[in-house]
Amino acid sequence: MPTIVECVPNFSEGRRKDVVDKIVYSIRSVPGIKVLDVEMDPDHNRSVVTFTGNKDNVQEAAFRGARAAVELIDLTKHKGEHPRMGALDVLPFVPISGVTLDDCVEVANKTAARIAKNLKVPIYLYEAAAKKPERSNLENVRKGQFEGLREAILTDDSRYPDYGPRMLHPTAGATAIGARMPLIAFNVNLKSKDLKVAKDIAKKIRASNGGLPKLKALGFDLPAKGVVQVSMNLTDYTVTPISKVFETVKKEAEERGVEIEESEVIGLIPLDAVCDLAAKYLKIGSFSSNQVLERRIWG
Amino acid sequence: MPTIVECVPNFSEGRRKDVVDKIVYSIRSVPGIKVLDVEMDPDHNRSVVTFTGNKDNVQEAAFRGARAAVELIDLTKHKGEHPRMGALDVLPFVPISGVTLDDCVEVANKTAARIAKNLKVPIYLYEAAAKKPERSNLENVRKGQFEGLREAILTDDSRYPDYGPRMLHPTAGATAIGARMPLIAFNVNLKSKDLKVAKDIAKKIRASNGGLPKLKALGFDLPAKGVVQVSMNLTDYTVTPISKVFETVKKEAEERGVEIEESEVIGLIPLDAVCDLAAKYLKIGSFSSNQVLERRIWG
Repeated sequence: MPTIVECVPNFSEGRRKDVVDKIVYSIRSVPGIKVLDVEMDPDHNRSVVTFTGNKDNVQEAAFRGARAAVELIDLTKHKGEHPRMGALDVLPFVPISGVTLDDCVEVANKTAARIAKNLKVPIYLYEAAAKKPERSNLENVRKGQFEGLREAILTDDSRYPDYGPRMLHPTAGATAIGARMPLIAFNVNLKSKDLKVAKDIAKKIRASNGGLPKLKALGFDLPAKGVVQVSMNLTDYTVTPISKVFETVKKEAEERGVEIEESEVIGLIPLDAVCDLAAKYLKIGSFSSNQVLERRIWG
Repeated sequence: MPTIVECVPNFSEGRRKDVVDKIVYSIRSVPGIKVLDVEMDPDHNRSVVTFTGNKDNVQEAAFRGARAAVELIDLTKHKGEHPRMGALDVLPFVPISGVTLDDCVEVANKTAARIAKNLKVPIYLYEAAAKKPERSNLENVRKGQFEGLREAILTDDSRYPDYGPRMLHPTAGATAIGARMPLIAFNVNLKSKDLKVAKDIAKKIRASNGGLPKLKALGFDLPAKGVVQVSMNLTDYTVTPISKVFETVKKEAEERGVEIEESEVIGLIPLDAVCDLAAKYLKIGSFSSNQVLERRIWG
C-alpha cells in the first residue's frame, strides 16, 4: 500500500491568478502528486493549496512550490487581512495513510533544511514539529508579521529561526513549517432550542476545560432548523475517535433530557477514521482499512 | 468519481500455469483494468480471476479473457472436481462504486451478445441478469455440465441459450454470464459454548426462513476460542446492511442471555458498506463515501 502525506501550503497571494497558477503548476509538475484543492481568497490576499503524495515526493513538490512563491511573491508589496510573514507563509504536513505524525515531523525538518539552504528563507517549525514549546502555537511564531519580524529576528533571541539565516528573505520573508494530524469537523445537532444545553455540553467535553483530549467544541443555535448544535473539531482522531465524541455528546445530552437529532461530518475524513467506527460499533477487533475493496483498487 | 465494476470470471483450467498466465495477460492488456487476484485450483482444475474497471473497459477485458479461454482450453479433455460447462465457465459482474446492479445487468447483456456473436459460444444469463426465473440459480443453468448440456441444448427447449447458437461450442462449451451484488462475509462470535444458541439465531435471522432478506446464516462451534459463531453472508448490503445484521444478532443473543464477544469481516468489503455504518451509528443523514479523503486521491 502506498503511503499518503497531505500537504496544505498557504501562499501570500490571493488576487493574481497567473501567479497562483504558476505555483500550483510547479507543485503538480512532480510525478505522483495529486492537487486536491486550490482556494484563492482575494480579501485575505492568500491562497491555500491542498495536495497529496508520499513521504518523498511531497517534499519535492513543497520545495518547488516554495521556490515559485519566493520568485513570484514580494511581501514588501503585500496587503491583505490575514496575518502573514512569508511568501510561502505556512506549510503543514499531515499523515493520512501508512505514515505517522513523527514521519511528518521528519518530512517537515528535511523540507525546512532544503528551503532554508537553497532559497535563503528562515524557517520556524510549529505544531508537532516545534522544537521550542512556545512555537507549537502558530500565532506565537507569526507575531509581528512580516514587517515586525524583519526587526525582531535580528534583535530578539527568542525569534531565532530553526533553520536558515537570522534575517528575513528581503521579499519572501520567513516560513512556518509544521506537522499535524488531519482535522475532522464533526457536528451533533440536539433536539432542543435551548442554546445553553449545547454550550454547556461543549464546555464540558472540550480539551481546554479538561474534557476529551484533542477536542475543540462550541455550542451554536440553529434557529432555522429548530435545533442547537455542538460544533467540534477533532485535532487527533487517533487519540479521541469520532465514536468516543459521539457517545460522550449523546450521554451528556441524555443527562439533560435531550435527544440527538442528527450528526454531520463537514468536508473530508480519512478512511482510517471511518474504519475505526466500524471496528468500534461492530466490535471488530482486527478491522483494517486494508479490507476496503477500493483501497486495493486505488491504493 | 470513476465508476467501479468488479468482474470475477471462472476459467476451466487450474493446472497449466502458462494457459492461465496468457488469459490473465489478455485481461490486463486493457488500459485501466486492475487485476486484484488470481487463484489457480489444481484439484478443481479451475481458476478464479478478480479484476476491476469501469462499465466500458470491464466489458473489453471480459471479452479478451473469454477469447483467450476459447482458444486455449478444450473442455473435451478437461477433468476436475468442480462442476463446469465452459472454458470460460461463469462471468459475474458486480457493482462496487457509482454503478447499480441494473447497470451490471446491462454490462452482462452487452458482453453476452459480443461473446456469443464473435466466439460462437452460447450464453446463459444467471442471477440478477437471468431472463428466466429458474436461471437465477447457477446450478440449474449448469445442470448436466459440459457433457450433459451438449445433448440437452439440442433437445430440451428449457435449455435454449439467451444468446448465441443452439449448440455448444465444440471445445469451449457454454458460458453463464450474470450480475450480482458484492458478497460480505460477516461473522459474530457469541460468549457461549452452546452451539444451539448460534444455530437457533442463524435459523431465525436467515432469509430462507423468512428472516432478514439477502442474508445467509449458519451456526458453528469454535471450541478453540471457547465461543460459538453465527457465520453469515450478506448477498446485498444495500437491502440488509451490516448494522442491521449486527443489531439483530445482538438482540437475539440478549434474548437468550448471551453477550457478543466480537465480530469479524472476512476478506474485502466495499467502501459504501463501511460508510453506511458511519451514517447509521452516528445518525449522519447525508454521509457519503465521497467524503472519504482517500477516495479523492485514489478515485
